[in-house]
Amino acid sequence: MRFRLLLAYDGTAYNGWQRQPSGLPSIQQTIEEALLPFARHGKEGPPPGFAGFTVVGSGRTDAGVHAHGQVAHVNIDRDLPPVALKRALNVSLPADIRVLDVSAAAPDFHAQFSTHGKEYRYFVWNGEVLPPDRRLYAAHVRNPLDIAAMRDAAARFVGEHDFAAFTANPHRTVASTVRTVRGIDVVAEPAPFGTLVEFRVCGNGFLYKMVRSIVGFLLAVGLGRERPENVDEVMASRVRTARVESAPPQGLFLWSVQYPGE
Amino acid sequence: MRFRLLLAYDGTAYNGWQRQPSGLPSIQQTIEEALLPFARHGKEGPPPGFAGFTVVGSGRTDAGVHAHGQVAHVNIDRDLPPVALKRALNVSLPADIRVLDVSAAAPDFHAQFSTHGKEYRYFVWNGEVLPPDRRLYAAHVRNPLDIAAMRDAAARFVGEHDFAAFTANPHRTVASTVRTVRGIDVVAEPAPFGTLVEFRVCGNGFLYKMVRSIVGFLLAVGLGRERPENVDEVMASRVRTARVESAPPQGLFLWSVQYPGE
Repeated sequence: MRFRLLLAYDGTAYNGWQRQPSGLPSIQQTIEEALLPFARHGKEGPPPGFAGFTVVGSGRTDAGVHAHGQVAHVNIDRDLPPVALKRALNVSLPADIRVLDVSAAAPDFHAQFSTHGKEYRYFVWNGEVLPPDRRLYAAHVRNPLDIAAMRDAAARFVGEHDFAAFTANPHRTVASTVRTVRGIDVVAEPAPFGTLVEFRVCGNGFLYKMVRSIVGFLLAVGLGRERPENVDEVMASRVRTARVESAPPQGLFLWSVQYPGE
Repeated sequence: MRFRLLLAYDGTAYNGWQRQPSGLPSIQQTIEEALLPFARHGKEGPPPGFAGFTVVGSGRTDAGVHAHGQVAHVNIDRDLPPVALKRALNVSLPADIRVLDVSAAAPDFHAQFSTHGKEYRYFVWNGEVLPPDRRLYAAHVRNPLDIAAMRDAAARFVGEHDFAAFTANPHRTVASTVRTVRGIDVVAEPAPFGTLVEFRVCGNGFLYKMVRSIVGFLLAVGLGRERPENVDEVMASRVRTARVESAPPQGLFLWSVQYPGE
């Protein structure tokens, strides 16, 4: 039976989503280990040859990146009520990984290959002093950001483009660096002693460090180091240079994953 | 010269505001130690007989309780620009304690005795699963809370009352347990998979664990274990019993401190 999991996590303590050969803590491994009790049938223990569960996520998140709505699937050879699986996982998982929902999935549902799109949100605290309760969940930019300039630049990323200049190691793992960004909203919420700036980035798929590279460039625009129209020039170059910096991981949340028909 | 400090902190890692005889980490001691370089005059070191700075807060916060706007004062025998003090403290303090503002204070300004009032905010996540990025900054209540009943109960705390039933150790340290609560707003903000419930409590002064005791009782009302009108009966009893539980510390923020004429 295939289950679909909706997950939220605080990535601070983890080396990202993907199981690490080094054994360093990862979200994937932590969930796979929490599932182990479901391999037992009564007191018999796991079936012969059982090598553990594989939890397949919609994609990887990097070390320190959070998720508000990661989606994963896992096959468990038992007829379990989804709600029982959800409750048991939330008892055994640490509090920085939570299972928001579990449902029965079609046998051909694949958390990674079936995706129709994703939304990421990136949070920046723009102010001299970073509030302590934001420090794990936002990047800190001290100098004032030009919101209008960032919106102008953001609009230039929207559409189908070759994002080779806005990814790390673009040609190692993917056949194509062409992706479609469906929208980037820049939301500024003034607060005492600063402004919370939120970048909401939707697209059909994202390359390695693509969101953090886009946000890094938008912040350079916001600080006046780049002009909005420079987005077009850097995009056309299809080469990543030192002009494109990755914004730090703690500001990034994988916000939601969309599947066809939803 | 007397300085007034506006402070925000994440109380998770501290044994409360007050310096601990045990030497366990406290907010007060951490700030006092960060001030030590200001005792030096050039290369001469601190003046003879210098025993360290004393930072006086508007009041104590308990272990695990946070501050959004704690106020403190400190005397430093130097003519320093307040902005230099702010910047230096934010460099040397850990990221979970931040100085939002420093100003020169009148010699008779006293962070504790001059207060006109305080606001506390208490955050509760009401839903089956506690989102990971709320776990350090909200209490978790799984069963649905009756917001209307809590508002009814909250209104009964407003005004001048003897809060002896809603404090811990009421007669050990204070002459009177009469306080005035100026208002309690109960704000419910629906979200996916739960509701963020916020209690905004304003008053002229608060007894030890008074806000957490009030919120604990309001939650008992919200869960149907107490009726709103029972507030009056428990208040009139002036005796704390097991009916009054303190809500856990991580939901509580000292939000702001008011002084006369501000």
